[in-house]
Amino acid sequence: MSKVQPRTLSGFMELLPARQIQFDTMVEILRESFSLYGFTPLDTPLIEASDVLLAKGGGETEKQIYRFMKGDSDLSLRFDLTVPLAKYVALNYSHLAFPFRRFQIGKVYRGERAQRGRFREFYQADIDIIGDGKLDSSNDAEIPAIIYRTFTALGLRRFQIRVNNRKILNGFYAMLGQTRKATDIMRTVDKLDKIGEKSVRDLLTGEEIGLTELEAAEIMKFIRISGTNEQVLESLEEYRGRNEVFDEGLNELTVVARNLKAFGVPAENFALDLTIARGLDYYTGTVYETTMLDHPEIGSICSGGRYDNLAEYYTDKQLPGVGISIGLTRLFFVLGDQGYLNENLNTAPTDALILPMTDDLGPAITLATQLRGQGIRTQLYTEQKKFKQKMTYADKIRVPYVLILGEEEISQGVCAVKDMRSGEQVKLSYEEAAALIQTGLAQLNQGTPIQDKGAAQD
Amino acid sequence: MSKVQPRTLSGFMELLPARQIQFDTMVEILRESFSLYGFTPLDTPLIEASDVLLAKGGGETEKQIYRFMKGDSDLSLRFDLTVPLAKYVALNYSHLAFPFRRFQIGKVYRGERAQRGRFREFYQADIDIIGDGKLDSSNDAEIPAIIYRTFTALGLRRFQIRVNNRKILNGFYAMLGQTRKATDIMRTVDKLDKIGEKSVRDLLTGEEIGLTELEAAEIMKFIRISGTNEQVLESLEEYRGRNEVFDEGLNELTVVARNLKAFGVPAENFALDLTIARGLDYYTGTVYETTMLDHPEIGSICSGGRYDNLAEYYTDKQLPGVGISIGLTRLFFVLGDQGYLNENLNTAPTDALILPMTDDLGPAITLATQLRGQGIRTQLYTEQKKFKQKMTYADKIRVPYVLILGEEEISQGVCAVKDMRSGEQVKLSYEEAAALIQTGLAQLNQGTPIQDKGAAQD
Repeated sequence: MSKVQPRTLSGFMELLPARQIQFDTMVEILRESFSLYGFTPLDTPLIEASDVLLAKGGGETEKQIYRFMKGDSDLSLRFDLTVPLAKYVALNYSHLAFPFRRFQIGKVYRGERAQRGRFREFYQADIDIIGDGKLDSSNDAEIPAIIYRTFTALGLRRFQIRVNNRKILNGFYAMLGQTRKATDIMRTVDKLDKIGEKSVRDLLTGEEIGLTELEAAEIMKFIRISGTNEQVLESLEEYRGRNEVFDEGLNELTVVARNLKAFGVPAENFALDLTIARGLDYYTGTVYETTMLDHPEIGSICSGGRYDNLAEYYTDKQLPGVGISIGLTRLFFVLGDQGYLNENLNTAPTDALILPMTDDLGPAITLATQLRGQGIRTQLYTEQKKFKQKMTYADKIRVPYVLILGEEEISQGVCAVKDMRSGEQVKLSYEEAAALIQTGLAQLNQGTPIQDKGAAQD
Repeated sequence: MSKVQPRTLSGFMELLPARQIQFDTMVEILRESFSLYGFTPLDTPLIEASDVLLAKGGGETEKQIYRFMKGDSDLSLRFDLTVPLAKYVALNYSHLAFPFRRFQIGKVYRGERAQRGRFREFYQADIDIIGDGKLDSSNDAEIPAIIYRTFTALGLRRFQIRVNNRKILNGFYAMLGQTRKATDIMRTVDKLDKIGEKSVRDLLTGEEIGLTELEAAEIMKFIRISGTNEQVLESLEEYRGRNEVFDEGLNELTVVARNLKAFGVPAENFALDLTIARGLDYYTGTVYETTMLDHPEIGSICSGGRYDNLAEYYTDKQLPGVGISIGLTRLFFVLGDQGYLNENLNTAPTDALILPMTDDLGPAITLATQLRGQGIRTQLYTEQKKFKQKMTYADKIRVPYVLILGEEEISQGVCAVKDMRSGEQVKLSYEEAAALIQTGLAQLNQGTPIQDKGAAQD
């Protein structure tokens, strides 16, 4: 028979078993972390009607969308988890309790140009808090705590959550009489990390934006405000009273900074950063970015912010919200690339591999059933192979314990338990074997999926 | 602004929060159950190249496939999890250890005619054990144990795993000299439950199949073999020695039946059933169906079997396997329809809802952080609303505990804990509150997602 070459599409991540377990462990930690903060899981379809999904239009994104006809239906694959959330909340408004806190971890699709580290199918992990009409700004203050808890649980240490408030920026540019140019200015200032201060200043005073040297200096002075959170807030207080929007933003930012300690976020993992603007059309208040201190070149690994109106394309209801998103597939790829994935993580598909050495499988099955009854993941290896091949299999799946059941063991009511890491082998009753394995697993399963080398001094 | 009507496509299940948590609980139990038997999780792309996905062709299924062009690429959405597995194993053959045991729980797509209870996007939950060249038949014997464990953990009681072996059927029809007509006969016999014995007999002796009355009687006698497992095997032994394939099938079926008890499957949840044939082109040995005893009209809720060659369209490697599949979305729908979903399951998105009654949120945040540190899912409710509205919110999300923090409580270093089920309210220290909640949750979270009314007498 002629064969079809098996292949996976470029831009689609497909993992080998050990890596898949590592990825799933990350997803599991995200779920647990989001749940701990009272977010409810949501699962929306991958496919939506194109007019619903593209209600907002999309510019750049629109070209990337997987859009097709099925019969008479014009369909599209979702390209983020925000539009489906907006649809969901508008559609189910009367059934939901507000603030509505939901998380969703799911695949989204963008037909980007194929290149290393870019994915066309990728997981996003989103949380959002949606208010009905209003949403208290203390919700914004909780987000850094969730980011901190999540990344810490994954094993990351050297990261920084950077926070700003769009109202402070808008208010500041209004003070300068530059409201009309604010978007251009922010877009330019956003490049500071990449192109440096001199180039930003040149662009600001250049033909296109056309600020005076004095105005540019004023802006540079403003965005260079830094120091501890207290120092930043103190410097910002000097601008208070000149613009209402600015003052409102400063109040909100103060709420975020003030409650950090009670929320358990250490000062070193947090910074007020006036250079951050993000998603210029969408965010209206607090904005967040998260960077890896030892790899700033990766960019933000968790971003988001406050918006005024989630679902304006579907409903007249005013639905303000605050949320963050993690590009999980890209993060996983980058972490692997930079050597952050914990190679000592237990990625065995099973905890105990039973090798029956007799034709009668009865005792081996009884042992397996008993171990499983105690929550130990157990596999029976019953293929007709040489002992050495069986042990090669055990090595290959990296199983921590091999249990050998020969006639002698069966007659004595015991099994031979081999600890595959130490190489030690002991004969134990079934109960003792289960206890030994459980003790070993408790230790073995302590690792986090990420191992932060930068935190070696901890 | 003119609005787009928010809607979800017909045939796409989208659940409200409480139902979603119930669904997720089922998925979590499946993952845990499959893991317990040493299956490794896999996650393959939703989209594949059409020539890869349709290597086998597809007849009926092919028309239902979501197939489209993106640029120059001819793409299709997966319609099951078996073809992607075949591709994966062929592609990654040298990296895998065999037997390769994998589970996958994921969405698949079929553009079926829209009607109640039919889904175009639905979850399948599959497990498969793939051998390299050979696969011992003791693997077939383990499958009923996995089915039993899985459905029991979900809360189902009154179900029956029905097992047959295609070799027994093929061998039997060979004995009758009817190998050529075997497929037609099996297809007819498969209708026994639906159309009754008389109609089956008429079809067998009808123009199309054209058996004699004697042959039809012989077949009816054979498929009517029933009784305990021992009785069925005994009856089958009478046919032994007349056909090699039959004998092989009988040996395999005997292995499955003999080890049931050691595998922990009660006799009442299992039956040898010679009427089962299933997937006539694909399965070659053991076949499984699982039916709900009180709702046979639903049909099989978990089916599968043994096949000779998983990936013949991609590779010359012989890869025999055995597997089962659960159509999870349809099962969930049907269970809901029949009143099997446990309405007492704890589907609250959070365990504790904190209501701060002071402007300073510090103490409330400290309490929330402390509860979360102990694994209690906690939400801060900080909206400016009347107390009554806050309690309405608590009722609506069905949170089990509300914690009230007023000035008095803060000055005393306590919080008022209200058990929302009993209505009782007590003042406790933060530590005592955490302990109370954890004790309550241990009890509250015991329920299974399915509640089997048929098992009320248990």
